[in-house]
Amino acid sequence: MDSSLIKLAKALSEGILAFPATAFRDDGAIDADGMARHVATLAAEQPAALVPIGGAGEIFSVDPDEYETLLDVAIDQAGDVPVIAGVGHGLATARRAARAAERLGAPGILLFPPYLTTADQAGLAHYVGAVCETVGIGVIAYSRNNGIFDAETALRLAERHPNFLGVKDGVGDFETILKLKLEGGDRFTLINGVPTAEILAAQCFAVGVTSYSSAVFTFLPAVAKRFYRAVRDGETEVFDRLMREFYLPLVAIRNRRRGYAVSIVKAGLRAVGEPAGPVRAPLMDLTAEEMAQLEALIATGRRIVAEAPAPV
Amino acid sequence: MDSSLIKLAKALSEGILAFPATAFRDDGAIDADGMARHVATLAAEQPAALVPIGGAGEIFSVDPDEYETLLDVAIDQAGDVPVIAGVGHGLATARRAARAAERLGAPGILLFPPYLTTADQAGLAHYVGAVCETVGIGVIAYSRNNGIFDAETALRLAERHPNFLGVKDGVGDFETILKLKLEGGDRFTLINGVPTAEILAAQCFAVGVTSYSSAVFTFLPAVAKRFYRAVRDGETEVFDRLMREFYLPLVAIRNRRRGYAVSIVKAGLRAVGEPAGPVRAPLMDLTAEEMAQLEALIATGRRIVAEAPAPV
Amino acid sequence: MDSSLIKLAKALSEGILAFPATAFRDDGAIDADGMARHVATLAAEQPAALVPIGGAGEIFSVDPDEYETLLDVAIDQAGDVPVIAGVGHGLATARRAARAAERLGAPGILLFPPYLTTADQAGLAHYVGAVCETVGIGVIAYSRNNGIFDAETALRLAERHPNFLGVKDGVGDFETILKLKLEGGDRFTLINGVPTAEILAAQCFAVGVTSYSSAVFTFLPAVAKRFYRAVRDGETEVFDRLMREFYLPLVAIRNRRRGYAVSIVKAGLRAVGEPAGPVRAPLMDLTAEEMAQLEALIATGRRIVAEAPAPV
Amino acid sequence: MDSSLIKLAKALSEGILAFPATAFRDDGAIDADGMARHVATLAAEQPAALVPIGGAGEIFSVDPDEYETLLDVAIDQAGDVPVIAGVGHGLATARRAARAAERLGAPGILLFPPYLTTADQAGLAHYVGAVCETVGIGVIAYSRNNGIFDAETALRLAERHPNFLGVKDGVGDFETILKLKLEGGDRFTLINGVPTAEILAAQCFAVGVTSYSSAVFTFLPAVAKRFYRAVRDGETEVFDRLMREFYLPLVAIRNRRRGYAVSIVKAGLRAVGEPAGPVRAPLMDLTAEEMAQLEALIATGRRIVAEAPAPV
Repeated sequence: MDSSLIKLAKALSEGILAFPATAFRDDGAIDADGMARHVATLAAEQPAALVPIGGAGEIFSVDPDEYETLLDVAIDQAGDVPVIAGVGHGLATARRAARAAERLGAPGILLFPPYLTTADQAGLAHYVGAVCETVGIGVIAYSRNNGIFDAETALRLAERHPNFLGVKDGVGDFETILKLKLEGGDRFTLINGVPTAEILAAQCFAVGVTSYSSAVFTFLPAVAKRFYRAVRDGETEVFDRLMREFYLPLVAIRNRRRGYAVSIVKAGLRAVGEPAGPVRAPLMDLTAEEMAQLEALIATGRRIVAEAPAPV
Repeated sequence: MDSSLIKLAKALSEGILAFPATAFRDDGAIDADGMARHVATLAAEQPAALVPIGGAGEIFSVDPDEYETLLDVAIDQAGDVPVIAGVGHGLATARRAARAAERLGAPGILLFPPYLTTADQAGLAHYVGAVCETVGIGVIAYSRNNGIFDAETALRLAERHPNFLGVKDGVGDFETILKLKLEGGDRFTLINGVPTAEILAAQCFAVGVTSYSSAVFTFLPAVAKRFYRAVRDGETEVFDRLMREFYLPLVAIRNRRRGYAVSIVKAGLRAVGEPAGPVRAPLMDLTAEEMAQLEALIATGRRIVAEAPAPV
Repeated sequence: MDSSLIKLAKALSEGILAFPATAFRDDGAIDADGMARHVATLAAEQPAALVPIGGAGEIFSVDPDEYETLLDVAIDQAGDVPVIAGVGHGLATARRAARAAERLGAPGILLFPPYLTTADQAGLAHYVGAVCETVGIGVIAYSRNNGIFDAETALRLAERHPNFLGVKDGVGDFETILKLKLEGGDRFTLINGVPTAEILAAQCFAVGVTSYSSAVFTFLPAVAKRFYRAVRDGETEVFDRLMREFYLPLVAIRNRRRGYAVSIVKAGLRAVGEPAGPVRAPLMDLTAEEMAQLEALIATGRRIVAEAPAPV
Repeated sequence: MDSSLIKLAKALSEGILAFPATAFRDDGAIDADGMARHVATLAAEQPAALVPIGGAGEIFSVDPDEYETLLDVAIDQAGDVPVIAGVGHGLATARRAARAAERLGAPGILLFPPYLTTADQAGLAHYVGAVCETVGIGVIAYSRNNGIFDAETALRLAERHPNFLGVKDGVGDFETILKLKLEGGDRFTLINGVPTAEILAAQCFAVGVTSYSSAVFTFLPAVAKRFYRAVRDGETEVFDRLMREFYLPLVAIRNRRRGYAVSIVKAGLRAVGEPAGPVRAPLMDLTAEEMAQLEALIATGRRIVAEAPAPV
């Protein structure tokens, strides 16, 4: 693995990966200016990496032309924070997006499962391998939905493709996580990427997985960062309070409707006065009642952080 | 509903919908000439409709630029057979593809579920509705995977959108099918679209659903057409023989690996001497052993048709 | 196969299998007198068979001592209708119940899946085989939940055990049904046994499966019998009306709460003035509002039957 | 909660719960003498509790008469180790078993989900509540399969029934686990009870869940106890080695066939020279090849423990 990949892998192994929302205008078109402001704001918070046009960035409903515009803006505004471009849809679109990411200067991509079709492990390896061979930058495979990797497949991909860095786990299957951690060692990057990954943060730290994606970081970075420190440093009281009074109630709102794991991010941005526009169908924006609950929750999260002891 | 939509709905309510494969070259690029030949051959067999760049056409891994080229070729070669363009991926890509289909002269589209994200019925209706409003041509929603419509949602879409024709059912849930049939009446188009739809053909006819998609039609139209007549006319002996000696063994090959429902179509084209190239990852082509089994099965299918009584 | 088994297999291949409720007293104990009256009433309606202490008979929550009392009463009141005793829970209880059924004079048993544990096809075959070897009477395996048989396993059981008659299918997987029908022939008994089996009745008839279980028969035999005739004789109008105005709305009530497929039978008995007591936990009785809906539906069902042309 | 329940809850909140196998003779009948020896051996290892006729004890296939014999023997041999009797099958059998457990002197029961039938949360609460009211001893609900409790239901059961101690979690859903831990506090007993619970042990400790069930304890208590200490005391090296070289390979054998989570316990007892007989169908005993793998693994486990530093 060359030194820039090693550096990237190291960056991804600790801290929070932030997932910018994709800014849309009220008429549904992309909002490049809004995107620029949003990414700049996030970059200033210094996450371990920025993953534009990922799940929270509605990769689902962005077309390839919009994609390049958005990615260009994001890379431009990311400053010194490494950008991992969300990539997916299917072989042709994914390869094109990966090439665009490389050309525009992103050090890596996060590869989502293929659209609709199911495949066994050999087929998935074939798919990831084909994308790895398209570029020289780092590739993280996002294990979820119809693209769940078993440990053997993921480890073999790492052997075969020097730029295959590892897996963002969206499943929470600890049999696989333990195998990857114990067999893959330092060569293998493993990121906790389940929806609202904070729910599994302490458990993952307990087995050596010390980075995770955070949707909360996108609209409330101070809370997300304080929680990370509580997990890392074993501050049980702060952990318990944020989990009980902020994260679990947030998950309760998220669970009210399929797709809210994404919608809640844009709702949060609206609530904190940094709106990024509506979500695209089939996603639905939160109802007014749910917005009010979220606003109250955000106030609670901020209060807990204010009252918590300053981190050492 | 205007008269051209009524005419289309009528055409889709009886007979076989054929799904062309998408021709790729050995280097993986699209093969427009191969596509033209393939679609012309299929059109000559006079299916009820042609659905290019659908599931069998690997919509999963075709990018939007390739898409327009392929669709243009397909419409050009379809002659008098109505073309229903496969459309999907997500809101922006789907709307763009729908507009292209309308511009190129297709009378309708088949709308696949959105990429990755899950949604409840309201979200799905929002998605389908947004696409319906983009064009004036007919829209069929493909109910499968993360986009399964309950009867109420589908009936409401038909009320709201004059160009929403109905549903291609990929699930085989007869509670929903019966409701759609009994409540939707003639206004509502309902197509049996489960994988290897011939398995449910007789059962669907028994409740008034008399059209289905056929992957076999793509490489062996004579067998597919003879089976259709056997179902329609209650020719039990021909039905039983084709089911037992051809379709069920075909399904056994298909079940050997996820994704083979698509791969087997290209394998069949290779076997009958009309190759359309390899499949794209994550799909895998059949092994040599499976190819030999498929060739034997094709010979069996042809022999059964040759020995069957000529249809009246 | 000896002549009594052949006779039984023939009886089970056509018509309706009726599933008596298990009568409980208000204090939750079994009500042997109520059971006797209920079974006698059902037997007078002459179903193809009676299956006491099956799913509708809450086999789930009946203990082995109660079981023998209830079965004894049921066989006593069944007259000339063959009794197929529901049997399950696990190896020791199932063998004990099978022996009781044989001793008390039942010509067959319906074997439910084992409690909780999962098994592959070899394990399931081992389980069914062990029960078959315990008795000489006929055995039907109920394919559902953690005990779903593939066609190969079921056909092999029929080869190995002369008293293994076949399968009551609770899944509705037509790949398996077609294989069993086409490979198993007359030797193999196949019964449509999905919840509210009337939903699949016409589809099953279309592929030669002409008997099914009916929960409606238990509380409204006139409607169940009229529907059967409509399916068998292709009376589309009667079929459509009963499906649309009676069965589909009944399924809508059933779908309101898990377990209602059973609870609705006792609610129906209460509604028609032949109460068999409450259900046992974890089942829940219908709410007052749902009871009112069910009563209205029963009136509708009766009216449709009254208005339908007399069967030829 | 009375003092004996408080004492029991305390005992169950730390350490390993051991699940004896149920000893069968080669002819399949229960082996009371074998059971006595086996339980005595386990009790001498001083687990936090003994759970006879639970999952590893094949509760699935034991009938109520066998049950009382086995339970009597187990309680008799358990010495000062608290016995939590496995209880299940359905309402009538579960209440009868719970009463037997109380009469024979067990301080608590572990209540398994009801047989086959599904229920919503209200129905499950109704079921557990009915069993709680039958006895005065402690009740733990085993959350798994068709009986998965959400946090609200479990907390409400604890409010209503003083002898409802809490939940053995067989799912590994950390949203629920965190809610129960943070809302339920000391009043609520929470046990990690997923299959091969050691896989989640460190993660559960990280959120305060410090007891778990161990199938390995049943045949290799020295390894199970050493692993527990490594988890508790954060001995990373011992943890990693046992996980990588013993537990993960054990899980690989377990995953080879459904039901092996139970079969592997009896295979392990055979391997260490303390056979408890065969498993009952539908379970299958390990093949000779798998037995050889297990024997090698047992040797590895013992060697790792021998080489590990003595616990402080």
